[in-house]
Amino acid sequence: MSSERVVRHFQEALGELKERLLTMGGLAEQRVSQAITGLVNGDADLIERVISGDEPLNQLHMEIDNRAFTLLALHQPMAIDLRAIVAALKINSDLERVGDLAVNIAQAGRRYLRHPPVKPLVDIPRMGDIAQRMLHNALDAFVGRDTLLAQRVLEEDDVLDELKTTVFRDLLSYMLEDRATVEPSLDLILISRHLERIGDHATNIAEDVIFMVSARDVRHAGGASSAS
Amino acid sequence: MSSERVVRHFQEALGELKERLLTMGGLAEQRVSQAITGLVNGDADLIERVISGDEPLNQLHMEIDNRAFTLLALHQPMAIDLRAIVAALKINSDLERVGDLAVNIAQAGRRYLRHPPVKPLVDIPRMGDIAQRMLHNALDAFVGRDTLLAQRVLEEDDVLDELKTTVFRDLLSYMLEDRATVEPSLDLILISRHLERIGDHATNIAEDVIFMVSARDVRHAGGASSAS
Repeated sequence: MSSERVVRHFQEALGELKERLLTMGGLAEQRVSQAITGLVNGDADLIERVISGDEPLNQLHMEIDNRAFTLLALHQPMAIDLRAIVAALKINSDLERVGDLAVNIAQAGRRYLRHPPVKPLVDIPRMGDIAQRMLHNALDAFVGRDTLLAQRVLEEDDVLDELKTTVFRDLLSYMLEDRATVEPSLDLILISRHLERIGDHATNIAEDVIFMVSARDVRHAGGASSAS
Repeated sequence: MSSERVVRHFQEALGELKERLLTMGGLAEQRVSQAITGLVNGDADLIERVISGDEPLNQLHMEIDNRAFTLLALHQPMAIDLRAIVAALKINSDLERVGDLAVNIAQAGRRYLRHPPVKPLVDIPRMGDIAQRMLHNALDAFVGRDTLLAQRVLEEDDVLDELKTTVFRDLLSYMLEDRATVEPSLDLILISRHLERIGDHATNIAEDVIFMVSARDVRHAGGASSAS
């Protein structure tokens, strides 16, 4: 191949890699959305579908890893292209975990639906909205190389962390008041943790976007971890 | 530089990368061990040190990422060297999360110590031992390119998952029997989840070792995720 054709082939392959990553992102988003919708609407069928439907995401995860690896092995990408491929490898891991977390939410949701419901799910639906929006914006930031949008994702993570603490406190007080709420409350606490972790993965993606675009490392800039 | 010197320089830099990764692994192990020891011995000082001591690990995380990235950018590593660098990038992320999880365990441990203790911590110490051994073996497997040892790490993950379920069931029954155990039990449940996730990260590392050595992808071979 002429060197011009090699470059074109590389850019095409890189474009395909990004496209597959977006497909994967869309799928991960959809699964989180279904798990939360299943919980909110008490839709046991939808929840079962989330639990048993992890395979396409797992396949994409391996495919994308292979594509990124092949690009590194066959070409010698430099600067922003190299950063984009390394970012793709990391984002790919994050999205796979998001898919696992959707399964975890659905599993806790399945248990939850077996009990009389706890109030109107406290702030769980709101946490679900924020986590999904963060994920969506992080992927949009990746596509558009939009560091401002990525920055907004980082800021929203604090809101999610605060809500997690509120949810914990609210549910704890129900549990202490009424024994019958112990089991369902426990599942809601676990779900709030899973949502918080989805927010963490969106944050990782946003940080990778900032690194990819500006070669600037914004991780660990805010001091200690706020998770618990 | 002569090409021989370039190769030697690359191999030296790759060796340093691995060495730093092991330093990081040792530090991550130590922090998990301190968090669990602090909980078991009711040592509030040790717990506080874990909570406030995440910085060295975060610094190493960024340093190792930069080293791996520089190796990819300046040299054109092939085959096993390329796989080793990509594995290092991934293992680095896993170890950083393990450090975060040690903080999470310590934070829940701090709350736990404020209440009268629940029985003898159910199976938490055993889960702690297994998670630490998995992490240690996964790193040993990385150093020794030992796929058999890596395989053993994968197998132990099932034991950890089962213990997590037992812990959950045991603590739930305490909570239903006696209101006073609700808060401390909740913290132990969260700690068992954090330990399970440390096991997941050890599993990721073991899978990366197998990929690095044999170029064989063993992820997603066992069907759906067993977490909840």
